[in-house]
Amino acid sequence: MMKFSVQELFEGILAGNKRLLAKAITLVESKHQKHQKRAEELLTLVMPHTGNSVRIGITGVPGAGKSTFIESFGKYALLQEKKVAVLAIDPSSTINKGAILGDKTRMEELAKEENAFIRPSPNSGFLGGVANTTFETMLLCEAAGFDYILIETVGVGQSEILVADISDVFLFLKIIDTGDELQGIKRGIMEMVDLVFINKVNEDNLSKAKLTKQDLLRAFHFMPEKEKGWKTPVLMGSALEHQGIEQVYHQIETFINLKKENQTFENIRMIQAEKRFQYWVQEYILQKIKSNHQIKSFFQEHRKKAMELKANPSSEAKIFVNQLLP
Amino acid sequence: MMKFSVQELFEGILAGNKRLLAKAITLVESKHQKHQKRAEELLTLVMPHTGNSVRIGITGVPGAGKSTFIESFGKYALLQEKKVAVLAIDPSSTINKGAILGDKTRMEELAKEENAFIRPSPNSGFLGGVANTTFETMLLCEAAGFDYILIETVGVGQSEILVADISDVFLFLKIIDTGDELQGIKRGIMEMVDLVFINKVNEDNLSKAKLTKQDLLRAFHFMPEKEKGWKTPVLMGSALEHQGIEQVYHQIETFINLKKENQTFENIRMIQAEKRFQYWVQEYILQKIKSNHQIKSFFQEHRKKAMELKANPSSEAKIFVNQLLP
Repeated sequence: MMKFSVQELFEGILAGNKRLLAKAITLVESKHQKHQKRAEELLTLVMPHTGNSVRIGITGVPGAGKSTFIESFGKYALLQEKKVAVLAIDPSSTINKGAILGDKTRMEELAKEENAFIRPSPNSGFLGGVANTTFETMLLCEAAGFDYILIETVGVGQSEILVADISDVFLFLKIIDTGDELQGIKRGIMEMVDLVFINKVNEDNLSKAKLTKQDLLRAFHFMPEKEKGWKTPVLMGSALEHQGIEQVYHQIETFINLKKENQTFENIRMIQAEKRFQYWVQEYILQKIKSNHQIKSFFQEHRKKAMELKANPSSEAKIFVNQLLP
Repeated sequence: MMKFSVQELFEGILAGNKRLLAKAITLVESKHQKHQKRAEELLTLVMPHTGNSVRIGITGVPGAGKSTFIESFGKYALLQEKKVAVLAIDPSSTINKGAILGDKTRMEELAKEENAFIRPSPNSGFLGGVANTTFETMLLCEAAGFDYILIETVGVGQSEILVADISDVFLFLKIIDTGDELQGIKRGIMEMVDLVFINKVNEDNLSKAKLTKQDLLRAFHFMPEKEKGWKTPVLMGSALEHQGIEQVYHQIETFINLKKENQTFENIRMIQAEKRFQYWVQEYILQKIKSNHQIKSFFQEHRKKAMELKANPSSEAKIFVNQLLP
């Protein structure tokens, strides 16, 4: 990684060089302070070249067929002469790697395409408490000229909120209901969703799929509009058979155009940028605390008191913060 | 709320007065600085009286029957002459209140019991960005003499991680699989789970339930032990019919005893207290930034640059933090 200067990485990204893009992402993901400094320089350089993609967040329970959907959607976008980047957020532990559930990367065909780029996020991004850099990775992909950034979440912990917070459109992949009430779609998630695709629909289960669709439409009907003039569409099809993907593609286009008309497209991106700013303020403050010896020793002292289970953690935190910022 | 002094609330809690406990929780949940100060005083007073409950986190997709399970489990615990508090984390928005999915509070019978206490968390706790006080509410309930604290999550965003981070045992309520691979249980969640209960099992679906159980056991088999000597049990039954609840109760007892033998019970609580400390450090730093005029104006300046989508949010955050803590 260190063989390349920031300038070389920057030029490589602008030229759409996927190998240098990958190296730049590794730099941005790095926890080393030296790398972080170079990463900031690189991000500052690429900023004027970002913002031109459609950022699509994709969620759904395991088994909903997210990888197959992304492969099918990606291929359709390539046919429209678009460039597609896939950022897969995978919070599974390094030990398990998700392989127990047989959920291997299924985007093999897409990965071979010249105009596609697939990048899993580092595992440690969520549960390990390491700073998440998916947003920054997305910026690099935009500078490299990708038109669609597909951000997959497996729906663990804060990953859905994080993905919704950096997407222009949030897509929920649904499987057909089994009789229970809207099983598998979580209440808070419904309010984030802009578009639903019921996957794995075929002739045999079509009537069940239609019932699921009705249930979803009814549920959305009672929810406030997230975007003025937008009734969350519930589409259906089969990603494996490439059925219904075209409609998803066009509905996304319609939605993005509506957001631009409503002037919410850029407004929401501004709010998202603000959230990222706040996220990094917290992150850098923690780094600062840990790198300054005097602050660190105050911190350790009150941390220890909280850990002894005798003092209330929030009170110890308050004392520390009052010392840190009088 | 303000009619009672901190001392009165404290004494009321120790006496097991549920009305004063409820008022104390409202105080702890308050965002007003004056209330926060009183809340810290109260929490400091109650600290020596906390830690004596079994803290049970409960998760599962909507439709898994969490409320029914909690009611059934709670009643069983009451029969064992235990006191039960239920903290329901409900991140649904104030507009929807979850009512669209017909998911009303079903713990009506439990709520009537003298030795039970049910408290939903404020809606704003997660998605609204307001500090979450479930841990502190739990401390108050412990001081009030509750033996079991059941903390329900509806599994949105960070709520599962938060609940796992304050629980001694994390229980997953499962519904019978529908053919797809372990649908509805998310990979990262499996690693947090100490005990699974397959709910809604009856004579008609018993063989399907057994298949689901086998699948789960197989999946857990390939995962590293979370607690030395503990193979995550997969139980089944019907909370509505009060079947299988006794086994859950006793498995929890066995698990807690094992943790105490392994000396992980207290160790994990210490790690949890540390996480709460770190959480509150971040929270109070943000409050501090917003309450100091000079700091706030620096903050706003860089926040604005980030929001204009021209500067990279993380670089602006770094500049601000370097000003805040030189």
